[in-house]
Amino acid sequence: MRKVVVAGVGMHPCGIWPDKERSEIALTAIINALEDSQVPFKDIQKVYCSHVLEGASIAQIICQKIGLIGVPMINMENACTSGSTAMGEAYFAIATGQYDVALVIGVEQMSNMGVLGGVADTKSLDSLLGMNIMPALYAMNANEHMHKYGTTREQLALVAVKNKKNGTINPYAHIRKEFTLEEVLGSRRIVDPITLLMCCPNSDGGAAAILCAEDVLSKYNSKPKVYMAGTALRTYAYGENSNDLNRRAAKDAYEMAGVDPKDVDVAEVHDAFTIGEIMHYETLGFCPLGEGGRFLEEGHTQITGDIAVNPSGGLQSRGHPLGMTGVAQACEVVWQLRQEAKGRQVNNPKVGLCHTQGAGGVACVNIFTL
Amino acid sequence: MRKVVVAGVGMHPCGIWPDKERSEIALTAIINALEDSQVPFKDIQKVYCSHVLEGASIAQIICQKIGLIGVPMINMENACTSGSTAMGEAYFAIATGQYDVALVIGVEQMSNMGVLGGVADTKSLDSLLGMNIMPALYAMNANEHMHKYGTTREQLALVAVKNKKNGTINPYAHIRKEFTLEEVLGSRRIVDPITLLMCCPNSDGGAAAILCAEDVLSKYNSKPKVYMAGTALRTYAYGENSNDLNRRAAKDAYEMAGVDPKDVDVAEVHDAFTIGEIMHYETLGFCPLGEGGRFLEEGHTQITGDIAVNPSGGLQSRGHPLGMTGVAQACEVVWQLRQEAKGRQVNNPKVGLCHTQGAGGVACVNIFTL
Repeated sequence: MRKVVVAGVGMHPCGIWPDKERSEIALTAIINALEDSQVPFKDIQKVYCSHVLEGASIAQIICQKIGLIGVPMINMENACTSGSTAMGEAYFAIATGQYDVALVIGVEQMSNMGVLGGVADTKSLDSLLGMNIMPALYAMNANEHMHKYGTTREQLALVAVKNKKNGTINPYAHIRKEFTLEEVLGSRRIVDPITLLMCCPNSDGGAAAILCAEDVLSKYNSKPKVYMAGTALRTYAYGENSNDLNRRAAKDAYEMAGVDPKDVDVAEVHDAFTIGEIMHYETLGFCPLGEGGRFLEEGHTQITGDIAVNPSGGLQSRGHPLGMTGVAQACEVVWQLRQEAKGRQVNNPKVGLCHTQGAGGVACVNIFTL
Repeated sequence: MRKVVVAGVGMHPCGIWPDKERSEIALTAIINALEDSQVPFKDIQKVYCSHVLEGASIAQIICQKIGLIGVPMINMENACTSGSTAMGEAYFAIATGQYDVALVIGVEQMSNMGVLGGVADTKSLDSLLGMNIMPALYAMNANEHMHKYGTTREQLALVAVKNKKNGTINPYAHIRKEFTLEEVLGSRRIVDPITLLMCCPNSDGGAAAILCAEDVLSKYNSKPKVYMAGTALRTYAYGENSNDLNRRAAKDAYEMAGVDPKDVDVAEVHDAFTIGEIMHYETLGFCPLGEGGRFLEEGHTQITGDIAVNPSGGLQSRGHPLGMTGVAQACEVVWQLRQEAKGRQVNNPKVGLCHTQGAGGVACVNIFTL
């Protein structure tokens, strides 16, 4: 397999943009990635577009506005892991030698949507039990974690405090406002113990990344080489719970990248609800099982900590335009590894990790190295 | 690149099944494909699921009902070419050596949907001009073809007569009723010259195919080896019209498969509207440009003709559950090549072709050989 590098990344800010077309949001991200990479659009050989909500041929509709290049374009959906999935598929297309240069787009416009549905069969037991309602699912995770490991409401709130603070220094973030511990705890209860400010916002946004084979990169730019070194998309195996699934995806990605959890300097982790970040400190191997809450409180995951988690503000603050998230995470990690993250720059990172987890039982971990 | 074969195929009949869950429809197809291939579900290493209408993690939701196998699963959408796209992606995953065995699912439930939307930006020029309304687009194609080449309304109707007759001998077809030329011409006008019976129905349905590396097939069954020999997914290149795009996809797929149009014995062609079949006789190289109408009238594309086109009944008769179609076409071609197509069996076919074309400017051709 050939080595794959990220030639460039770009983003459209997250927020509420009901008057923009989805393609307009995506185009800004793509043009930024083309500029960043210095790759001419005509050199793109395959396009992967991640989006979740209704729409057909989104990649084709978007790309027609830049130029007609005739290449294969594929739209992908894997719930909240859609963007990470598209990154992984683009990786394999290049690593296996099919193509030299691929564009990954992640886009979603959630401000125009109705109620998010379709995550489970409407007549399934899961749906009838309300298990297709995301805050309810995560609330069960939170209650279990509190009961088993003594995780506190304050720790659940502290994730939001940290990530919302990080978001204030990210120009692409949707929520750019600090909140105190008291404000997070005192905000409207959604499903106990989850309060409104422990939930990510529903945002519009777009992100793009251009991947290429290592040996063609020099044609385009001489920025620090960021390798996509590991990628693992996994679904439930027999007997697994959510922790097991995420742990296995992480293990497989680490193995492929040839790195250990302790090597990770910066991570973008799926904090759609704050309990997620605490759980995934553990599943990603940053700390032992059950110690996520303490690990957070001790400051390890601050921008200045050993493993900066969600320096972008994460889903809590950047927002969670479903199809965009995995690609947006990759943008942040690339900026961090290239030391271009300005006010939120992590100190000299060498290894970055992106993690998403999605409805239907799917987890994806992508690892980037210098 | 390794050789890839179809280990087995399966289908759920097309029709109107509003009381079934989408996953129930897909499961029937998958179980039929597993039985046909003798591949145990646990041997599946990657799943590609094609669906277009709303829903998230459909592959995961479906497959959880058969068993938890932990493998990567990806949902794909490429408008009407979604199923063909998924077949192509599965092909490459095996041909490049990533995986030995992959499952492709195509499923759609159109009876529960509202109006089909999202094919173009709502504020785009195309939409404002009504170009995202499929019958309108195809009516323009038909009018152009009639004007330029003298194609007649009767020829447009004859496609429906042929395919609807073929559908009567396909147990998986939605419309299993013969219509006379007069009935087709006299049915309700949709957009001139297209009448109701020149349009495919909106159907529910599911199809599945299991692809594997040639060298592992003998572990599973000893049926006639059907190779997936060529696949080409293409989008508009600069200066191309729809004919050019489809012609280029075909040319690339022929080249990859090492066959010529004259080698094709059986073809499943995108006849969402009957003019499509006539146009694609030409773009696929079965006859010269402009002669599609006459080629049809001369009987070349009957089941008993030189190139049997849509022996399944095509989209006209089997139906067009969007995400299913490309996979359903592959099922038919595999049955034909294995001489298992019963009453609609084409005489001793060696080369089969599947063609779809989708909104947003996308065409896909997959070629199968014995």
